[in-house]
Amino acid sequence: MQRPNYPSGKDLLSADAVSRFDLDDILERAERHLQEEEREKAGLPPLQPPAHRRRPKVIAALFDQRSTRTRLGFQAAAARLGHQSIDAYDTDRGRMGTSTGETLEDHIRTVELYSDLLVVRSHLEDMPYRVARLSHLPVINAGNGADEHPSQALIDLFAIRHMRGAIETLSIALSSDTRARFAVSFVKMLRLTPPRRFTLCCLPDVPINPAMREAMTVLAGLGTEIGLVHDVRRTLDHDVLSIQMQDMSKFAHAALGSDAVDKEKETEPFTITARKILDARSDTLILNPLPRFSELDPSCDSLPNAGYFRQVALSVPMRMAILERMLSGVPWTGQAAARSAPPP
Amino acid sequence: MQRPNYPSGKDLLSADAVSRFDLDDILERAERHLQEEEREKAGLPPLQPPAHRRRPKVIAALFDQRSTRTRLGFQAAAARLGHQSIDAYDTDRGRMGTSTGETLEDHIRTVELYSDLLVVRSHLEDMPYRVARLSHLPVINAGNGADEHPSQALIDLFAIRHMRGAIETLSIALSSDTRARFAVSFVKMLRLTPPRRFTLCCLPDVPINPAMREAMTVLAGLGTEIGLVHDVRRTLDHDVLSIQMQDMSKFAHAALGSDAVDKEKETEPFTITARKILDARSDTLILNPLPRFSELDPSCDSLPNAGYFRQVALSVPMRMAILERMLSGVPWTGQAAARSAPPP
Amino acid sequence: MQRPNYPSGKDLLSADAVSRFDLDDILERAERHLQEEEREKAGLPPLQPPAHRRRPKVIAALFDQRSTRTRLGFQAAAARLGHQSIDAYDTDRGRMGTSTGETLEDHIRTVELYSDLLVVRSHLEDMPYRVARLSHLPVINAGNGADEHPSQALIDLFAIRHMRGAIETLSIALSSDTRARFAVSFVKMLRLTPPRRFTLCCLPDVPINPAMREAMTVLAGLGTEIGLVHDVRRTLDHDVLSIQMQDMSKFAHAALGSDAVDKEKETEPFTITARKILDARSDTLILNPLPRFSELDPSCDSLPNAGYFRQVALSVPMRMAILERMLSGVPWTGQAAARSAPPP
Repeated sequence: MQRPNYPSGKDLLSADAVSRFDLDDILERAERHLQEEEREKAGLPPLQPPAHRRRPKVIAALFDQRSTRTRLGFQAAAARLGHQSIDAYDTDRGRMGTSTGETLEDHIRTVELYSDLLVVRSHLEDMPYRVARLSHLPVINAGNGADEHPSQALIDLFAIRHMRGAIETLSIALSSDTRARFAVSFVKMLRLTPPRRFTLCCLPDVPINPAMREAMTVLAGLGTEIGLVHDVRRTLDHDVLSIQMQDMSKFAHAALGSDAVDKEKETEPFTITARKILDARSDTLILNPLPRFSELDPSCDSLPNAGYFRQVALSVPMRMAILERMLSGVPWTGQAAARSAPPP
Repeated sequence: MQRPNYPSGKDLLSADAVSRFDLDDILERAERHLQEEEREKAGLPPLQPPAHRRRPKVIAALFDQRSTRTRLGFQAAAARLGHQSIDAYDTDRGRMGTSTGETLEDHIRTVELYSDLLVVRSHLEDMPYRVARLSHLPVINAGNGADEHPSQALIDLFAIRHMRGAIETLSIALSSDTRARFAVSFVKMLRLTPPRRFTLCCLPDVPINPAMREAMTVLAGLGTEIGLVHDVRRTLDHDVLSIQMQDMSKFAHAALGSDAVDKEKETEPFTITARKILDARSDTLILNPLPRFSELDPSCDSLPNAGYFRQVALSVPMRMAILERMLSGVPWTGQAAARSAPPP
Repeated sequence: MQRPNYPSGKDLLSADAVSRFDLDDILERAERHLQEEEREKAGLPPLQPPAHRRRPKVIAALFDQRSTRTRLGFQAAAARLGHQSIDAYDTDRGRMGTSTGETLEDHIRTVELYSDLLVVRSHLEDMPYRVARLSHLPVINAGNGADEHPSQALIDLFAIRHMRGAIETLSIALSSDTRARFAVSFVKMLRLTPPRRFTLCCLPDVPINPAMREAMTVLAGLGTEIGLVHDVRRTLDHDVLSIQMQDMSKFAHAALGSDAVDKEKETEPFTITARKILDARSDTLILNPLPRFSELDPSCDSLPNAGYFRQVALSVPMRMAILERMLSGVPWTGQAAARSAPPP
């Protein structure tokens, strides 16, 4: 995997690109977009009149992995900012990167001349890095293979802060396959605002992804109390539980509401249900990057713990904040590590 | 079919949702959009300067039935209002409603958080009702199975009033399969402005759809003279003929201009031709929700009777009026019936 | 092929539609859009504040030939002007023109009522002419069979003038299959600003397309020195080389970077490489309407001669200029020939 040094902070490819300063700035921008939206709905005048915009910008989506939610999410955020999206995936060529490098290069160099910002999602880990190197435009990594998904991590941090307050004061649990790209970005991003306590909930007999292990070591070094459990019930004393499918678990990809799941969900260790939450008298905030599989039982939806639909709503002002910041050329000032090769 | 009570008038799911007050308001709004469009084309200043808009709205199309015209129509109307459309049909899941209810619910709940208004077209009759119940957003039923298509009925009423004047003074004929969803919405909508005379032209040996029969009974109760004929020639003394394909007729779905059609069109009872119109010395206004099949012969296109292309043009200001009204939160104040279960 | 007389200059179907006056005007408009874009990037105020726009326009794309670049190019230009694009290709009907004429007519007449301008690309040569005749809207021919592609020719003229100055003073070479639609439009368009010298580079044993031959005869009559060569090396003393794939050449459609191409590219007569340019100590500006095939070796990309990516960037202000001019109703005032039948 080629992941070259690149000199500028123009791109959001990894959680490493984000500094504490950047995080504070982006959370504040997202909060402001949220407030303006709420004021508009309430019929109140805007706090800040929209800056005079000279011409709409063009956001190009280069996705070779299907994604209804992420694609619509960026499209909606762009629309609300007055910009437009184009679907610049080169369907003539099949998957990006299976064609020759030169052809990909030509495609990117052409698309970038029609656009102002590129959003890349790929099954190939090096794809957003290649695109970022080829283009002078800002590039958002919206998921690359098993590597990272930093914009989703920013959405989760915004949701937690908005719904539970300062992250440094909180205990946060993550139930996830440790190779999930969102999970890695999320734990890496937590280094900027280390929680009081962080607990990973995962399968006991599957090795922990080295990138996840490293991110947890960083958190430990910053003073976070680290825990490891193998049953979501053991996370229900935390302030927050971010839960995802465990790829290797018994129920992985099982359909919600199927008989098999319904019969065993109360004993299956990686499925959260209303009964488990009520039994634990838990007020843990439950987050989930929808769409969900069997890990999150719909019985939870009516509990006050259910934060995941609010989380989707909060994704709009956060994606607006990310687009607006990057379109106006503000660089990401994270560690140099963000700009060099990832773990091989 | 679940079609629950819902408390608000946020949605346009049925002709029942529309009151006489609503109809007057929406016709006036459509007329105003039309005037502004014509003034703009003539280089005249707008009558009303456009209200200061704080951010573009997002219109989400949830279509599991193909529709070039309706989809483009709403997209164009949204664009002219300065809004944007997203295609939120969840292609990952196949047809809406064939997946589990929970998954549809999750999809709707997510899409609604990215959008400001939902336009639903489905082969399932209960789909727009389910979406409307799941979402706090305004929902437009753009056709649901064999049930209704109320926005198309509003377009037709606008076309008739614009081209022939006050509907109460007119004789109106409808040649259509009586189970066609547009036809049902159209006749139900006529109750708000009952024509002097209403004639249904349909196949003699096919039972009339109960919903259509009921809507005609309502019209009769309001003083409209009701007629039933089985040949379009018998409608050519009316002020207006709205003609659609008869699903069970000999020529149903036959290609325009095919030899079989050309040979028999002058005798086939559900096809309107220029010769029939000229023979009857008729000045009946002909309407048709394009695309047409064999029911409307192209020989009619050059006659002054042909109103169907003007009708498409008038669909733009009407769809603009519907979107604008619903986006600004004005409720539909039609009968309570609109909010309860339809005939099973 | 029906290519009827049409009375107005509303459409851009052929290079013939463009007069010298039109060319000067469109180049000036494109230059102005480019300047405004550069001023905006530099944070400078606009030279001309954008005119008060009353409502966004709708650009309908009717493409039955796949085209990533042209489609995205018009979409991006429309977006930057604040307009929106709709994809009005009637997927229900298969390729345009294989259905009956009546049905195509209905489709066009409907789409035009939702739109303000139509962009047509078709495998059928008469398609844009049929659409232009059916619609009162301005129509852009974005490529029709083996006939013309006039907007691409305008892009190339703009690129040449912007990068090399007044075309009358230049020597221009074109290496192309002589039946390529862009090539024909390009040479026809050159009549408006005849270069000092024009050289065609093509296969020695393939007959020259009569339309190309005629366009070259016109140039000769205007005083341009005409040449014919069969090896790109013989064009490297020119100011400009516009190079395209030669359909009948050995390497036609061969993948860039394939072993077969790499081994022979220095001897293959229709492939330009860095070595050939450097050996000739040439400062010829190389243009190419990307995507490229084997005719343009990536080794050229780092040379100052490479003008093709800049050419793509310049396509945005030119497409903006074309859309803006046609949307505001300014007619093309080219020869009457543009409005009558093309060579059969």
